[in-house]
Amino acid sequence: MKIIVLGGDGFCGWPTSLRLAASGYEILIIDNLSRRNIDKELSSSSLTEISSLEKRIDVANKLIGNIKYKNIDISKESKKLKNIISDFQPQSIIQFAEQRSAPYSMMGDKQRRYTIENNITGTHNVCSAIVETNKDIHLIHLGTMGVYGYSKELGKIPEGYLNINIPDTNKNIDILYPTNPGSIYHLTKSLDQLIFQYYNKNWGLKITDLHQGIVWGIETPETKKSNFLINRFDYDGIYGTVLNRFITQAVNNHPLTVYGIGGQKRAFIHISDTAECIKLAIENDKFDKTKVRIFNQVSEILSVDEIAKIISDQYGSKINYLKNPRKELEKNDLEVSNDGLKSLGFQPITLNNNLIDDIRLLANTTKANFNKENVLNSPLW
Amino acid sequence: MKIIVLGGDGFCGWPTSLRLAASGYEILIIDNLSRRNIDKELSSSSLTEISSLEKRIDVANKLIGNIKYKNIDISKESKKLKNIISDFQPQSIIQFAEQRSAPYSMMGDKQRRYTIENNITGTHNVCSAIVETNKDIHLIHLGTMGVYGYSKELGKIPEGYLNINIPDTNKNIDILYPTNPGSIYHLTKSLDQLIFQYYNKNWGLKITDLHQGIVWGIETPETKKSNFLINRFDYDGIYGTVLNRFITQAVNNHPLTVYGIGGQKRAFIHISDTAECIKLAIENDKFDKTKVRIFNQVSEILSVDEIAKIISDQYGSKINYLKNPRKELEKNDLEVSNDGLKSLGFQPITLNNNLIDDIRLLANTTKANFNKENVLNSPLW
Repeated sequence: MKIIVLGGDGFCGWPTSLRLAASGYEILIIDNLSRRNIDKELSSSSLTEISSLEKRIDVANKLIGNIKYKNIDISKESKKLKNIISDFQPQSIIQFAEQRSAPYSMMGDKQRRYTIENNITGTHNVCSAIVETNKDIHLIHLGTMGVYGYSKELGKIPEGYLNINIPDTNKNIDILYPTNPGSIYHLTKSLDQLIFQYYNKNWGLKITDLHQGIVWGIETPETKKSNFLINRFDYDGIYGTVLNRFITQAVNNHPLTVYGIGGQKRAFIHISDTAECIKLAIENDKFDKTKVRIFNQVSEILSVDEIAKIISDQYGSKINYLKNPRKELEKNDLEVSNDGLKSLGFQPITLNNNLIDDIRLLANTTKANFNKENVLNSPLW
Repeated sequence: MKIIVLGGDGFCGWPTSLRLAASGYEILIIDNLSRRNIDKELSSSSLTEISSLEKRIDVANKLIGNIKYKNIDISKESKKLKNIISDFQPQSIIQFAEQRSAPYSMMGDKQRRYTIENNITGTHNVCSAIVETNKDIHLIHLGTMGVYGYSKELGKIPEGYLNINIPDTNKNIDILYPTNPGSIYHLTKSLDQLIFQYYNKNWGLKITDLHQGIVWGIETPETKKSNFLINRFDYDGIYGTVLNRFITQAVNNHPLTVYGIGGQKRAFIHISDTAECIKLAIENDKFDKTKVRIFNQVSEILSVDEIAKIISDQYGSKINYLKNPRKELEKNDLEVSNDGLKSLGFQPITLNNNLIDDIRLLANTTKANFNKENVLNSPLW
């Protein structure tokens, strides 16, 4: 079975490509290396030393399985994208090729426009190309829990659809959960949802949208097979997710930086589980095609302060509480369904039992790449 | 007071620019003439002979008021757009610069992609430019009734927001009406809504979204002042709205072409009322900025068959019932609130009392431009 992984050089795309290759799938990565270019723009870099994509693939082909690579920009080279899909004939396409940092998307006009153009045009080009080439291709898209907003006002967060009652007519219907994005990045995932709804309704496209929690961790069983396969690891205020920032700070004897009182509850998932959930979605592709399948790809719910305290307890790190640069609730309650992926066999890795692996890995890598300045470089919004 | 009219050369944009100029506003039209270029692509043309935009503006400046023009593509030239806004310092910006034909947006891959890119990137560029230049600018956007879908399942269609009850928590809240677009074009207006929601929430942008019905008619008091000011008039299957197609067919002794049984109820508005409603929105700009202001810009609800019969009764035209090329309900009921604009003083022009003007105008213009082939050139979807 053949799979195209759009954005297969990225933080989620690379380990997922390896997991699928290790499972016997024939993989074609499409990537324009935009994430590496943004590193240059931000004078930032992965804490782990990642190899060139060519080198990664060379080693992966020796140790793991069949991976190819083409460098195209799917948001600009729609014709090439269509031809590649037509030639390669994938059964599934995984769309990771979106700009994925909320803080980056809020830095200014340029980054807002880039995030909208890259994400919306890219994702729409994929949908349109599927209509043109083969409507049976299963499209799997990485969404975000952020499309729901972080509020329990509407109860436990369901998987994509909310049952409502219309007082005027006293009818009960399921609607796409009313979106409440917190950044331009999250907005793009909300926009994607409407594009998917329409392509599903009009052309019957088979689409799975995975609303992922905040990803933490570095390694998966496959990336551990060689130093050349190591995953990227961002700890800065722009691309580093909160838990990864804390881990890096702990290892480098830097205080843990919590925004506000750290009362923000969020959903988390380990990077290895990202790969596993995508694999589950691909392998369980018989579902009701009359609507977009939406799963919440999350393992556990924790508040930022709870996480800081777990790490602080283990490593003696201090915690610095800073003014929150974002417009968000200081404190929120959160309950999320993840029944869908669990029903397919998903067994989440949780924080307490696996944190130690990442710390050990980071402590063993050179600390030369750590730049304190980058930890607090998140923009105000 | 200064107003920028994006897409000011188009079917709605031109008469609105003239109405506002006649009311004493200083107008800057921004247009890349894309609608004229699509005419070439489709080997189609306006039934009325429209002058070049330069000529139009020249005559308008002599007869009506102060209008300037700059040719830029707001979806591609974001920097120029920002500079123009910064230099001109408008109090309001009206966004008409979206590809506005549902059939065109469904012709194929190229047209789908163009409609998404042009409409979404363009509208987002305007929002982002307003954040950069002056957050007090009032943005007025032309939406469509099509964002709601055409169903009475949820009751009478409200203005933008639907009151719902969540059975799980028994809470009542207002949400953005669950969207149900029927084409890529309509999808873009649904996507715009989410962009507006976010820019309003995060930057407090003052936005009015006008969900317009199907526009009919040709002339307004201002376009009648000179042949050089005449509005464009499309009667083809791609850009001609249903009522305008019927009027053209009647004048040219062609049978009226109804898709299906003509049971589709739709909301209609006369072109002169389009201009009037925009003016009302501009002049009544004190409103609750904590959410996007949404009005339904419609005058009356009629079924396609009802319209065909009104015209047939007056002109003896035959009615041809054809297989519907679109995926839509054969018959629907529809009830729509238009209380918002009415509360600002809107007094709708209705079909029965004003149809005659358009017929007379068309009968007096040369019939040389009428091409029967174009009447039925709508794509299947």
